[in-house]
Amino acid sequence: MNIGMIIYFLGWVLKTEGLLMLLPCLIAVIYQEASGLYFLGTGGFCVIAGWLMSRKKPENTVFYAREGFVSVALSWIVLSFFGCMPFFLSGEIPRLEDAMFEIISGFTTTGASILSDVEALSKCMLMWRSFSHWIGGMGVLVFILAVLPLAGGQNIHIMRAESPGPSVGKLVPRVKLTAKILYVIYFCMTVVQILILLASGMHWFDAVAMSFGSAGTGGFGILNSSCGSYTMFQQAVIAVFMTLFGINFNVYYLFLIKRPKEALRCEEMRAYLGIILVSILLIAWNIRGYFPTLLEALHHSAFQVSSIITTTGYSTTDFDLWPSFSKTILVMLMFIGACAGSTGGGIKVSRLVVAMRTVKKELLSVIHPRSVKVITFEGKPIEHTILRSINTFLVAYAVIFALSVLFVSIDNLDPTTNFTAVAATLNNIGPGLGIVGPVGNFGVYSPFAKIVLMFDMLAGRLELIPMLVLFSPATWRKNS
Amino acid sequence: MNIGMIIYFLGWVLKTEGLLMLLPCLIAVIYQEASGLYFLGTGGFCVIAGWLMSRKKPENTVFYAREGFVSVALSWIVLSFFGCMPFFLSGEIPRLEDAMFEIISGFTTTGASILSDVEALSKCMLMWRSFSHWIGGMGVLVFILAVLPLAGGQNIHIMRAESPGPSVGKLVPRVKLTAKILYVIYFCMTVVQILILLASGMHWFDAVAMSFGSAGTGGFGILNSSCGSYTMFQQAVIAVFMTLFGINFNVYYLFLIKRPKEALRCEEMRAYLGIILVSILLIAWNIRGYFPTLLEALHHSAFQVSSIITTTGYSTTDFDLWPSFSKTILVMLMFIGACAGSTGGGIKVSRLVVAMRTVKKELLSVIHPRSVKVITFEGKPIEHTILRSINTFLVAYAVIFALSVLFVSIDNLDPTTNFTAVAATLNNIGPGLGIVGPVGNFGVYSPFAKIVLMFDMLAGRLELIPMLVLFSPATWRKNS
Repeated sequence: MNIGMIIYFLGWVLKTEGLLMLLPCLIAVIYQEASGLYFLGTGGFCVIAGWLMSRKKPENTVFYAREGFVSVALSWIVLSFFGCMPFFLSGEIPRLEDAMFEIISGFTTTGASILSDVEALSKCMLMWRSFSHWIGGMGVLVFILAVLPLAGGQNIHIMRAESPGPSVGKLVPRVKLTAKILYVIYFCMTVVQILILLASGMHWFDAVAMSFGSAGTGGFGILNSSCGSYTMFQQAVIAVFMTLFGINFNVYYLFLIKRPKEALRCEEMRAYLGIILVSILLIAWNIRGYFPTLLEALHHSAFQVSSIITTTGYSTTDFDLWPSFSKTILVMLMFIGACAGSTGGGIKVSRLVVAMRTVKKELLSVIHPRSVKVITFEGKPIEHTILRSINTFLVAYAVIFALSVLFVSIDNLDPTTNFTAVAATLNNIGPGLGIVGPVGNFGVYSPFAKIVLMFDMLAGRLELIPMLVLFSPATWRKNS
Repeated sequence: MNIGMIIYFLGWVLKTEGLLMLLPCLIAVIYQEASGLYFLGTGGFCVIAGWLMSRKKPENTVFYAREGFVSVALSWIVLSFFGCMPFFLSGEIPRLEDAMFEIISGFTTTGASILSDVEALSKCMLMWRSFSHWIGGMGVLVFILAVLPLAGGQNIHIMRAESPGPSVGKLVPRVKLTAKILYVIYFCMTVVQILILLASGMHWFDAVAMSFGSAGTGGFGILNSSCGSYTMFQQAVIAVFMTLFGINFNVYYLFLIKRPKEALRCEEMRAYLGIILVSILLIAWNIRGYFPTLLEALHHSAFQVSSIITTTGYSTTDFDLWPSFSKTILVMLMFIGACAGSTGGGIKVSRLVVAMRTVKKELLSVIHPRSVKVITFEGKPIEHTILRSINTFLVAYAVIFALSVLFVSIDNLDPTTNFTAVAATLNNIGPGLGIVGPVGNFGVYSPFAKIVLMFDMLAGRLELIPMLVLFSPATWRKNS
């Protein structure tokens, strides 16, 4: 294990985080909030510590997949530890495990909160919460890759470990350029959303915060009603942008380089949009009696569906009161998740499509033993290693899921709450059902259960493997 | 598709079922119940129809895996259709879908009931219910294989399609002999259990019925209290035998041929017993406050754990009242299930062990890319095709599970009830939690939901593939 390189990376992460804290400082200046000093202090500390750690690039730059996974996992833990300090030190979130839960929920774009009264936070804290979604959405390490004065084999291992999806979303052969393109698309789309929301008459603070939450598919609201008190038009804008941020960014890149036909042919996007459409119609029909007009039922159905499948977690209404059929669809969408290569979480549409195709292929090979069928996706045959990694992911996912439900059940809350609390954190959604539903929060859980759920949020955002590698004894054995 | 051979097989199934109905007839004679006539009539019809269908062996005996799967799936549906007739015709279960649900639950060794008052049934009906567990436990087609005057390639395809587990449990090279050995072990163990229960002072009717239910890991009780009103010793005997019937029968065969060392080395059995032990201790500790002594807590924990992991479904107490932690363990055991090659259901311990090993191997290959590691099980490297079939099974399982929960949720019952109703039927357990808990029943569901759950019971018992092949359009295409 090349500890030197890992420390070097962590240094860059800290420096970057310190600089990012300038945004909440700015907000504190605007709103004249004293609590902005906590961002100034923490940020300053991060920059100095990070500078010390990354002053000199190690001579030994050997960097394998293992180092990549460990760097990414540790980076996210360090990022969260310092990121929660302003909450904790200012006393606005008095308990350390709660502050940590809140910021992990932010960076992992989960949006699950332990706060019962969000509006009690100061403005700079609220903005930091929402900004953490934006930082975590595309990945802070991908950002660093885009700016880091480094070239070499390490980049791809970092990118692979932090990017969502079964295969690495390299748009162009060079990792550094890929990272830059991704961030440019991400930045521009966020700006467009802010502008549209401003044009609709939304206050600038809300427009920025809500756009950060949509872009990162995070879901922290800045009002206790989440999105319930915005106008229908504003809600619709947010719904559309959530859906857009859940699409594989490869599609936007293809549009950028003027290959729209290829972009529209993306199988994952088609499956994703198809699932959204069917879900919206089924739920709207199921809840039609809950709203005065069918249009409103459609509107709320569409908002909740796009919020859940993209694993954002905003809500316009308390869907925990909806009938079982609708709730079951929403829970299924929690697991499906968004597209690979987007900012969304969950299992990812592409993994599910490929997994279903393997079942179909196996069935056909039973029915017609002599037929030879190759599994294809996005027009290309799927490599054996990808299939294996998808299977591994699904099994590891199920095991982590089951054990997490078991651990949080020690608190003796009801089964639906426990099940959906884990589903909502491991898939980086935010709200679940029952006590952790859209109008509830995660504050009722014990510190132990919160630690389990924090692990789930990180494991879910980093797609399991980095966290498993970090905690695997084999990683730390001397002879390796 | 060789329709002639399939009809020939179905004929044998019908003849066999007709003869098996002699047992409830006998019970009716003993208890002087007129409802025994329904068994006589149905049984007579089955024998005649079956005789007509299997009078002449088709000339074309071509028989592939496809024919095997379709024969098995159809056999179980035909078996259930005629098996439920006495319930329905006698009016003791007045609705056809309920009668069908009850007998499918019996043959698939699920033990889920739509009856709120079991004790209202006549004795011959009760015995037929319990006997159906015994018939379905080891597999009626395996039984027919043992007696059928046939030799050839079809046997292995039938055996593969009906036997539980990822690989075929051929004890000896000849399928016919394997089937015979399995049934002899099964029969003898059942007789031993009956004798022990008789010696403990249990009424002969109860002893026979409860032993049928344990042997097939079924779970239909003949009292409304399930096993709650038997003595602690009798409950303990049942618990031990449930556990024994959940072990891979290969182990007993190795004992029979005097290779006890190999028998004890069985990795699946060790994992299975380990899971049972840990679960018993965890639950006993968790429920210690619910019973006057720790011994009683241990007793009830042990009974429920062995009942659920073997997918039997007997109960001695209403475990739906236990704390969340214990209930979560029980739900996890529902999914784990018993050993392959036993009469139990669920995903099977061997599948899970192998799946976990693939995850471990993938992790190690990330950590040490140059290491070459082969996945072994029971001392042998696992073939690629077995790994693929396990992955296919797990994906198909998850999809069927999710869709079933969605379909039954249309009835608008609570999420815990819906989730555990599907878990309890797809894994062939019997009781779930909530409305379908140990003191509840499945009668509240609509006919549509019952059909979904019937499909799940059959799919679970036959390990998915036969039902999927039966309903796959590709199976029935002309050019095949």
